[in-house]
Amino acid sequence: MSAWLHDLQTPALIVDADALEHNLSAMAAAKPGATNRPHVKAHKCTPLAGLQAMHGHRSFTCATPREVMGMAAAALGDDLLLANEVLDPHRLMILSSLQEQAQITLAIDSNETLDAVAHAGLQRVIIDVNVGLPRCGIAPDKAGALADKARARGLTVAGVMGYEGHLMMVTDRAEKKAKVDEAVDLLLAAHADVGGDVISSGGTGTYDLHDRVTEVQTGSYALMDTSYASLGLPFRQALHVWTTVISATDQWAVCDAGLKSLGMDHGNPSIDGQFVWFCSDEHITFSPTRDSGNAIATVGSKVKVAPAHVDPTVAYHEWLHVVRGDEVLDTWAIDLRGW
Amino acid sequence: MSAWLHDLQTPALIVDADALEHNLSAMAAAKPGATNRPHVKAHKCTPLAGLQAMHGHRSFTCATPREVMGMAAAALGDDLLLANEVLDPHRLMILSSLQEQAQITLAIDSNETLDAVAHAGLQRVIIDVNVGLPRCGIAPDKAGALADKARARGLTVAGVMGYEGHLMMVTDRAEKKAKVDEAVDLLLAAHADVGGDVISSGGTGTYDLHDRVTEVQTGSYALMDTSYASLGLPFRQALHVWTTVISATDQWAVCDAGLKSLGMDHGNPSIDGQFVWFCSDEHITFSPTRDSGNAIATVGSKVKVAPAHVDPTVAYHEWLHVVRGDEVLDTWAIDLRGW
Repeated sequence: MSAWLHDLQTPALIVDADALEHNLSAMAAAKPGATNRPHVKAHKCTPLAGLQAMHGHRSFTCATPREVMGMAAAALGDDLLLANEVLDPHRLMILSSLQEQAQITLAIDSNETLDAVAHAGLQRVIIDVNVGLPRCGIAPDKAGALADKARARGLTVAGVMGYEGHLMMVTDRAEKKAKVDEAVDLLLAAHADVGGDVISSGGTGTYDLHDRVTEVQTGSYALMDTSYASLGLPFRQALHVWTTVISATDQWAVCDAGLKSLGMDHGNPSIDGQFVWFCSDEHITFSPTRDSGNAIATVGSKVKVAPAHVDPTVAYHEWLHVVRGDEVLDTWAIDLRGW
Repeated sequence: MSAWLHDLQTPALIVDADALEHNLSAMAAAKPGATNRPHVKAHKCTPLAGLQAMHGHRSFTCATPREVMGMAAAALGDDLLLANEVLDPHRLMILSSLQEQAQITLAIDSNETLDAVAHAGLQRVIIDVNVGLPRCGIAPDKAGALADKARARGLTVAGVMGYEGHLMMVTDRAEKKAKVDEAVDLLLAAHADVGGDVISSGGTGTYDLHDRVTEVQTGSYALMDTSYASLGLPFRQALHVWTTVISATDQWAVCDAGLKSLGMDHGNPSIDGQFVWFCSDEHITFSPTRDSGNAIATVGSKVKVAPAHVDPTVAYHEWLHVVRGDEVLDTWAIDLRGW
């Protein structure tokens, strides 16, 4: 692995060591220890999860069986919540076999998901409650009955979770707080019927608006992206894609990142002082913004590209390079990819 | 690996064996042998490239050094064109070391890219000419001088290439033909100065509008996507993401593909008879279209999702399953990922 940023093979995913440390410390101060359950889907990287553990968070949220398996293998399995419904018997059996090495809790929201989990021999579930986002989660008034069924089958019901993903990007803080409170009301109503110690909710966009849950599930705060940056959160853009300019004319330049190294669902990435024309599979065409005073980038120069959405960007990459200034301090495997 | 479609772990990338065979045969009939240089960036899969070779195409287009290395390792290296500019000395040296096993031609469009290729000891280049797409490629009137410099350094100049990517989605055929002709005029003007045997251009959206080039570079035709399907080409949608419904209410269902298993730059994927509400990292929320008469999908049922853009979809997956009806005939590694 290279010791210098300019020697990295591009496109390369890089994280600024100081920005990352700032983000992890800021969150650990606001939501210390078990009050934050970091979501590994945002970085899919056990070394980064290890750093979160060193900041006091020993419980983690996962989105896929592979993430659970990888976290258990990395000895980060004290308390793993798979906050997603899984029906595949094969991977559920693998998770079940890991219960000696890790505490694994599975989200369920239906009889079918309960059956699948129980059949595989998994012992702990959490009731996933719909709190307004049209996605997974059982209706709040049906949560108690599902918990009863789970207990009747000998399972431990850890509590409830509900993700208010539809509220992450609300910009007015008072409006956001009011809407989060409505979502939490639904979750607490379900919890009254379900019982259990855990009331899990939230994300990076709402982490500081929760005072009635036992924990928040924050992911994006560690690396950040340009979408979350628009919310004015106290976290810094730590993740970029490091690229090389491979072609240039007197009107535009082209660097070597593109649709296969950037999650595009939140739109184009950003480059400081530059306007992004468009992205192709392996290219970004860009030119200086009118007021930047920049010249067009020259062939061979390096450009830092800020992704619009962290999670699907990271999922394209094999490595995450930790950098400070011009130095590459470490290179971490993005070892939790796939499903 | 599973023998039955319903046993596949989801999300799973699947290709319909008959649709693939139809697509490969249709292209081989229209552009036989060396008149088509299939682009492996669309599938990143050497077994599929091997099938293209069995249909008569022994020359291939690549977008990354890894694609060239993988094709050479798979004994598909008779004639590999890296149709992209590369400056990284390390990977260029690796490509150079493969020249005994494979014929490798590198695109160059500047003094810097010529220097990089020559310094690494690579022996064959093609002059990448800008024919209207604001991306890579030298201005047509400067192409001859760059070719002269390359020859002066002892390199073989194979010819010219130019990609009219800005014209792929023009829907009116007469207008498209006229614009393609303008682009080819530019390419031929450059070729008059450059020389060489190869005049390479085109893609799936324009493959049948080229009669003055020696070869077209088609990628998407093999697997297809919903964007190209809108053009009415004689190729069938062969690629889907196979998913499991993991949650459902009386208003929507949720399947287990999402932003990390689908390229999103062309917008949401499609599901027959269903309206896609939105995609999250690991989920698609959808419900029946009003006129479909469908009921809401039930938990545990399977859903075929058609990606809007093939290339960045494939790049997320490790495996491509070849299916016919309910049977999984084969499972291919997507072995050309990364850069």
